[in-house]
Amino acid sequence: MGAPARAIPHASSRAAVLDVIRAAGTISRVGLIQATGFTGATISTVVRKLIEDGLVVETGRAESTGGKPRVLLQLKASSRYAVGVHLDHSGIAYVLTDLSGAVVARMTRAGAGTDDPPAVVERMAAEVSTLIEGAGIDRARVLGIGLVSPGPLTPASGMRLAPPVMRHWADFPLDERVQRATGLPVVLGNDATAAALGEYWSGAVSGSSTFAAVYVCTGIGSGILINGIPYNGSSGNAGEIGHICLDADGPECWCGARGCTEVLAGPAAVVARAREDAGVARAAGLAGGNGRGHSSVAADFAAVARAARRGEPGARAIVDRSARYLAVATRTLANVLDLDRVVLTGQSLAVAGSMYQPVVQEELDRAFFSRATHPVAVQVSTSAATAPAIGAATMVLQSELVPLQPGTRIPGGLARPEQAAARPSGT
Amino acid sequence: MGAPARAIPHASSRAAVLDVIRAAGTISRVGLIQATGFTGATISTVVRKLIEDGLVVETGRAESTGGKPRVLLQLKASSRYAVGVHLDHSGIAYVLTDLSGAVVARMTRAGAGTDDPPAVVERMAAEVSTLIEGAGIDRARVLGIGLVSPGPLTPASGMRLAPPVMRHWADFPLDERVQRATGLPVVLGNDATAAALGEYWSGAVSGSSTFAAVYVCTGIGSGILINGIPYNGSSGNAGEIGHICLDADGPECWCGARGCTEVLAGPAAVVARAREDAGVARAAGLAGGNGRGHSSVAADFAAVARAARRGEPGARAIVDRSARYLAVATRTLANVLDLDRVVLTGQSLAVAGSMYQPVVQEELDRAFFSRATHPVAVQVSTSAATAPAIGAATMVLQSELVPLQPGTRIPGGLARPEQAAARPSGT
Repeated sequence: MGAPARAIPHASSRAAVLDVIRAAGTISRVGLIQATGFTGATISTVVRKLIEDGLVVETGRAESTGGKPRVLLQLKASSRYAVGVHLDHSGIAYVLTDLSGAVVARMTRAGAGTDDPPAVVERMAAEVSTLIEGAGIDRARVLGIGLVSPGPLTPASGMRLAPPVMRHWADFPLDERVQRATGLPVVLGNDATAAALGEYWSGAVSGSSTFAAVYVCTGIGSGILINGIPYNGSSGNAGEIGHICLDADGPECWCGARGCTEVLAGPAAVVARAREDAGVARAAGLAGGNGRGHSSVAADFAAVARAARRGEPGARAIVDRSARYLAVATRTLANVLDLDRVVLTGQSLAVAGSMYQPVVQEELDRAFFSRATHPVAVQVSTSAATAPAIGAATMVLQSELVPLQPGTRIPGGLARPEQAAARPSGT
Repeated sequence: MGAPARAIPHASSRAAVLDVIRAAGTISRVGLIQATGFTGATISTVVRKLIEDGLVVETGRAESTGGKPRVLLQLKASSRYAVGVHLDHSGIAYVLTDLSGAVVARMTRAGAGTDDPPAVVERMAAEVSTLIEGAGIDRARVLGIGLVSPGPLTPASGMRLAPPVMRHWADFPLDERVQRATGLPVVLGNDATAAALGEYWSGAVSGSSTFAAVYVCTGIGSGILINGIPYNGSSGNAGEIGHICLDADGPECWCGARGCTEVLAGPAAVVARAREDAGVARAAGLAGGNGRGHSSVAADFAAVARAARRGEPGARAIVDRSARYLAVATRTLANVLDLDRVVLTGQSLAVAGSMYQPVVQEELDRAFFSRATHPVAVQVSTSAATAPAIGAATMVLQSELVPLQPGTRIPGGLARPEQAAARPSGT
């Protein structure tokens, strides 16, 4: 069957051309005509406007088979910037990227903790200014802020059904307040989906058509990319593997269900088990008490994971048990979505990923339903701490750079990962 | 963010225009320009060729606000036909649809059983001829055969990793042999995905953007449609909820894993439990022995389901247990995909759906992760026996009728379900 076709409104032909230029590295006008299917007149008009706006520059000539050499076009990466903010209980990560998605500045500040949302927004606005000014970038060139946080998100804004540690953020009009405080447009998103985008744009999953980022920070989630395009589901809340049932008779989860991956295997469950064993708690240097107050779940999890990595047997057993549950949940995700690649990411897997990866890979090799057809490769992210913030920034860039559907040919130039992806079969 | 744009190759502009005409019922050339975004010249050329080929007819005039009335175009439904075949162990269902997807003939014959694949192909070829000739249709107007069967499918053909009852079909070059035996082009597909397509084209899931058919025949699977387009995953094997883990310590499944939905809750598990209880076996009229031979799993399951519906308590308890497992598996599917609609379908749920529906609906109402954002509606198919064959036929029609991406406006005319679907957010 052929691929579905759709009408191209004028506004997005600009974005499509810009994205082809970005993906190709350098490309001629003739190359753009071939890659997009637009007419020569359309390409000529769109390119003229992009050059006028300073987004694209001419950059020398390509050799041509007969005829005169063709002028090459290139993105002017420094013409526009985007801010990415990853807001979490345990930390707030900021990145500033240029139009090509390259990170030009990054910083990490204290998490939202138990502070009131308005106070956190005020602080974030100041920190965004610090980020932009510190990089010496003209604020007028900043397209906007991508702001990602734990889901599920409401269609409009906010963190309805937020996890316990961020419940006071539910129904807070996050995008509106940040927009007012910074004067910059705000795009909200889910942290796990942003992590997947961050991995994708940083080239970590080149060649994958159907990829998930299994994301463990304070909770467990996943972000799903189909040919580089986020799969959002009907309300922007897809990929919630932290709340699929692995044991119908298991303990009750904060979400209201029983035996969820998160309540069995999430960082809070690992920390709780470690605290139950005085030897493990001591080896991990966990403070006494119930873990509330200033220590965060993610920080305590990291302490247990480090103890496990040092070979403390009790800590290792607790981490291994968590890894086996996460492996089963990842297999479910792979069976439902027919994945070809999984990246283990998020702040907690940045510390513990090397202990989880072999367990998840073994589970998929042994029991992924379609294993006779193809394997599912499991890798640990090399940019787990910043992937969600990078993904958040690319959400803003995508409003300027709308990718063409996969399968579009990029003649010449460097094929970036999102263009190298194969077209899905049969649609 | 804007929707992704893509280039429109010439070949698919014809299919896109044809699909808009189909979806609209009747539409003018001006309406087609508005709906597709194609130029007037393109629409004029494409429509002229469609009329020449007999696929489209002019059908009167619409009133116009000032100016002269516009000529309306309509699909000529009887200009082309498609055969859909649903090949299963327990039965083979055939449908013949016209170009609009309406069923003009249907029949059911004995299943593949333990017969050799070449003998079954020979019989299928004869039965396809009976179907076409019985309807009085010129074979030259038949576009091809859509043939669906239990997955997972290899990229090329065949039923590699087929369930035990059809294991002798693994690696059989099914499409090639049927094509040779019938002289018609063959498109292979997964039965569960075809069931979802069949439900969608028959209008059962109007208004849904993210829909799954939970499909129970001999085994358990699901078909996923995103805005009317099948989600296939990286190798055409998405939606395998029969083989997600509901109990890590559960019994071993034929797929090699433990505690799969299918081994806990599938028709074969229900029948096995019923056989273990002499009273239930007698009430259900199950023949003695191990269930092999002439009785099929689906037929035996139907017998147990009928006993349960009559109020036989042992049978009812066995069915309810199966329903609870299926409900948990369906919730996993909903959490991963952020579904807004589920249809219970397949031969076994055609008999037992009314007992499964309340259990699945209650599970989603109570524990679907994003329930604060939106509900997931669960309904029983009204065309469970033929949905996969209808879906198989539409796979052929889609090679002529490639749908536009959702969100395309259909001015005037009757919006069919696949056009009424909302655009997904955020992509």
